[in-house]
Amino acid sequence: MTQLDGGVVPPVCTPLTPERELDVPSLERLAAFLIDAGMHGLFVTGSTGEVAYLPDETRYRALEVVAGVSAGQVPVLAGIIDTTTPRVIEHARAAKAAGADALVATAPFYAPTHPVEFPGHFRAIRAAVDLPLVAYDIPVSVGSKLPTEVVVELAADGTLSALKDSSGDLDGLRAVLEATDLVCYTGSETLADLGLFIGTHGLVPGIGNVDPHGFLRLYQAAKRGDWAAARAEQTRLRKLFEVIHVGDGRMGRYSSAIGAFKEGLVARGVITGGTTSLPMIPLNDTERAAVRQRLVAAELL
Amino acid sequence: MTQLDGGVVPPVCTPLTPERELDVPSLERLAAFLIDAGMHGLFVTGSTGEVAYLPDETRYRALEVVAGVSAGQVPVLAGIIDTTTPRVIEHARAAKAAGADALVATAPFYAPTHPVEFPGHFRAIRAAVDLPLVAYDIPVSVGSKLPTEVVVELAADGTLSALKDSSGDLDGLRAVLEATDLVCYTGSETLADLGLFIGTHGLVPGIGNVDPHGFLRLYQAAKRGDWAAARAEQTRLRKLFEVIHVGDGRMGRYSSAIGAFKEGLVARGVITGGTTSLPMIPLNDTERAAVRQRLVAAELL
Amino acid sequence: MTQLDGGVVPPVCTPLTPERELDVPSLERLAAFLIDAGMHGLFVTGSTGEVAYLPDETRYRALEVVAGVSAGQVPVLAGIIDTTTPRVIEHARAAKAAGADALVATAPFYAPTHPVEFPGHFRAIRAAVDLPLVAYDIPVSVGSKLPTEVVVELAADGTLSALKDSSGDLDGLRAVLEATDLVCYTGSETLADLGLFIGTHGLVPGIGNVDPHGFLRLYQAAKRGDWAAARAEQTRLRKLFEVIHVGDGRMGRYSSAIGAFKEGLVARGVITGGTTSLPMIPLNDTERAAVRQRLVAAELL
Amino acid sequence: MTQLDGGVVPPVCTPLTPERELDVPSLERLAAFLIDAGMHGLFVTGSTGEVAYLPDETRYRALEVVAGVSAGQVPVLAGIIDTTTPRVIEHARAAKAAGADALVATAPFYAPTHPVEFPGHFRAIRAAVDLPLVAYDIPVSVGSKLPTEVVVELAADGTLSALKDSSGDLDGLRAVLEATDLVCYTGSETLADLGLFIGTHGLVPGIGNVDPHGFLRLYQAAKRGDWAAARAEQTRLRKLFEVIHVGDGRMGRYSSAIGAFKEGLVARGVITGGTTSLPMIPLNDTERAAVRQRLVAAELL
Repeated sequence: MTQLDGGVVPPVCTPLTPERELDVPSLERLAAFLIDAGMHGLFVTGSTGEVAYLPDETRYRALEVVAGVSAGQVPVLAGIIDTTTPRVIEHARAAKAAGADALVATAPFYAPTHPVEFPGHFRAIRAAVDLPLVAYDIPVSVGSKLPTEVVVELAADGTLSALKDSSGDLDGLRAVLEATDLVCYTGSETLADLGLFIGTHGLVPGIGNVDPHGFLRLYQAAKRGDWAAARAEQTRLRKLFEVIHVGDGRMGRYSSAIGAFKEGLVARGVITGGTTSLPMIPLNDTERAAVRQRLVAAELL
Repeated sequence: MTQLDGGVVPPVCTPLTPERELDVPSLERLAAFLIDAGMHGLFVTGSTGEVAYLPDETRYRALEVVAGVSAGQVPVLAGIIDTTTPRVIEHARAAKAAGADALVATAPFYAPTHPVEFPGHFRAIRAAVDLPLVAYDIPVSVGSKLPTEVVVELAADGTLSALKDSSGDLDGLRAVLEATDLVCYTGSETLADLGLFIGTHGLVPGIGNVDPHGFLRLYQAAKRGDWAAARAEQTRLRKLFEVIHVGDGRMGRYSSAIGAFKEGLVARGVITGGTTSLPMIPLNDTERAAVRQRLVAAELL
Repeated sequence: MTQLDGGVVPPVCTPLTPERELDVPSLERLAAFLIDAGMHGLFVTGSTGEVAYLPDETRYRALEVVAGVSAGQVPVLAGIIDTTTPRVIEHARAAKAAGADALVATAPFYAPTHPVEFPGHFRAIRAAVDLPLVAYDIPVSVGSKLPTEVVVELAADGTLSALKDSSGDLDGLRAVLEATDLVCYTGSETLADLGLFIGTHGLVPGIGNVDPHGFLRLYQAAKRGDWAAARAEQTRLRKLFEVIHVGDGRMGRYSSAIGAFKEGLVARGVITGGTTSLPMIPLNDTERAAVRQRLVAAELL
Repeated sequence: MTQLDGGVVPPVCTPLTPERELDVPSLERLAAFLIDAGMHGLFVTGSTGEVAYLPDETRYRALEVVAGVSAGQVPVLAGIIDTTTPRVIEHARAAKAAGADALVATAPFYAPTHPVEFPGHFRAIRAAVDLPLVAYDIPVSVGSKLPTEVVVELAADGTLSALKDSSGDLDGLRAVLEATDLVCYTGSETLADLGLFIGTHGLVPGIGNVDPHGFLRLYQAAKRGDWAAARAEQTRLRKLFEVIHVGDGRMGRYSSAIGAFKEGLVARGVITGGTTSLPMIPLNDTERAAVRQRLVAAELL
């Protein structure tokens, strides 16, 4: 099986046509852009990829497209995001068929479950489909944090191969790093240097779609122990990341963030259009211009 | 189109075989049992029906089965529960095809949306499938409450036909009742009399699977203004409802509640087995015996 | 000792001079106004009385003033609101000295305590000062709900005489009413009829400062079982209560609510000025005019 | 006025006699112990100092004692923790009289205030008492986070001199560091190295009472850019910090943590007894022995 071993693994945006169908040529260009930039893997149908908005067929087609472009150059991770075990297992099977090298699953959500039921959830997924399993800790979406004890237990028995931490809890992440040999990724764009400082193996930055080279520089600086350089790159990327607030006040923060990432990719010539899924509110002309200004300021245009 | 007009509309349990496949004969018996008991409608694939646990095909098959049993005797409402608009619309189409008379949808979840995006969500669903649309307000699962202003706006323009309130916020429900002509249902088993006291039109009680006659008595007493009788029945049902805590301490509260409802239906001879979906933890023998004792105390056995 | 036995017990506003000193003549007039209106008790230094804003000396002076006006006509309850046991006990002693007939204390706050520590808290207060003790359940301020089990335990051993429930959780209140013989009060202005319907003994309505007669009518209708009249009065009071939103968007909801109550009392000629404590934002002219319009609409002016 | 300039500033424990009076000789020894260990300041009546549990006179006496021991050797910061502006100002005056060099105040709590009211709160405190003012951001106690914009605004106009961040939000702390010239302290014991890595000026570690030398080594390593040494020391201190869980399951986490800190100080011969305030639950013999084992493991005994 593919070995996950960290590095920069952006959660790939899912380009849509104006009719909100999958824009295959744009997705192909995006995947190639990211691989050419030196990314160590691609995470398809993650939160940034609008997984929660995509019908099943669109999810699996996006995965096929990216797996086709990668063709083994880098591992392709697939988000298998759904409410509970039986539904997640269906996605797991489909993702394997579509070419995924590893699967990324959250704890159950919507249904009021309990941490005592999390181990059974991940074990059933792992038993159903033979691919490395990554636990995705994202309390803001799931409504509960994956307890460290659960992660440690599931690392010890081989259920999990890796952890993607989008909780922002560096203390908890540190505890997992100390207690397991899981490959750990952080989903934080703005604390990436700190994540690497504490020993996290990889980064999954949404805005890495727009500036993969910046995150690669940050990662490489950290790897060679040049913390001053890592921190300086992080400072630049923090400034760029403010672009996610471009629509604040007029829409939800996710509409704003995903809209900004996609507009940034349009501005850089990678994808054709910035359409986002319903019910997200589209950026208007002023907001789109503001995105471009941010990219100019970050020397990406 | 079918008119929703309140009454007792239990969220139908979804019986499963030991292999966790849909147990069609049991579901047929359950639907018949509830219709015979005088229920005014049946709500299929709601939270109590384990909707968040059922693969798509199981959801739609359960709906077909219940619609087949009802054969127009009572309206069949279908929960079309998923994270965001495009996915919910797919369920809406399938539910209509499977025989639903009305559709029940929540606000988006998992994806961080915002109240400003809720109207677009419900309007797109209503535009896609021509069936009465019920807004399902269930903050414990969705993570946010449907603001009264949004409900009022969507009532005024005809997007919504009804509201199912599982928020426990009687003050907010009262505001909707005052400001709209929506048919309103409360999902609370223990405040049903209060819901009817403030003018709510209907009840959607999970434990109504086990004791539909009790809720019918409560509803009828309220309808004729006999509040003392309504309150007395509510007191009895509150006691019965404590059965949901049968597994407390050993499992999540949902495992305990759904397990108890199903075991109660087994005890009453309506369904064959009490199997619940993964990753729920099954009741053990002691807990199952405790369920039966509760039913004896409530004079249901 | 004074017996608490329910009825309407408004949480008395604390009038301030423009320099934010206690306005004693206004407070005397307010206490007399409320007693003349038939209130069954007065709750001094509660949340509506700005207890969390008043220096100790102002708290105790306000209590002395109201106890002096009452002179035994009605029981005077004193809020002894502070972070933890030793500080609350100091208030308890001072309140007894200032003439309180009963004491109202919350669970600890600010300091991260735990329900397992709540019984010791209330028992130590009760042991330190020999006055009836009322548990004040106000999760919005305290950050945690008083568990039913704790209330039941402290009722059983005589620590508590009463419960003031400002949690909005009618289901939990019902559980306390079923399991104890505590005198129970609800702090909800908008669900007062429902509170009485389930057997709650008394009301503690903030806006009862402005319209004590309305709450008395509601209470008396409920007492005689005239639920239609109780509900109709509640509908009128719900409309009046919307006055608390007069400053929404420009200030916090508490600045708006307390400002509105005080302005209402000025408009009705009971107190001299509407000054509120720092850091609350004062109502402006437009907002004050809106308060008066609401009072006109409610036929209070 | 005293200049705050970072370094290690432990929040001093408040030793109590078995009768729960201030144990002055123990407090004198503790203050001397910490100053001898090279601490750059002492923070009296902070959360670790049980400020929320201490009656006013105990608070001020503790401050006098520590100020007396310091006698100008290091700055003495005083927590002036209370619900709202008028009460906090009373503490501010008393703290200045008792010898404080700087004041540490939170946003209002208990009373439902709003961020729009925070600037008025801090400005009124600063205007009332002429001492450097430190904003204390501790959402777990206060219930809301100090917004970055508010901190920036109050830094710009000179209201604030410093920020003590106990929010755990390193991203927000980074934003303050980038946008202001405030002296910033982190209250996190387990992320101290990361705090210093991003440019935070000082540490306020509760367990620094027990191991001040460890935090000094960590701080000095970071100052000279030796991140490997800082991280190694942090790893050791993280292990020691697990002592706060010694009473888990039998008491609240604060009872456990404060009990452990005090027992550690007893074990090290600094204070006489480990008594904590009501309603905290005391450690039992087993738990006290476990504290000592941790200190042995950390080579402090």
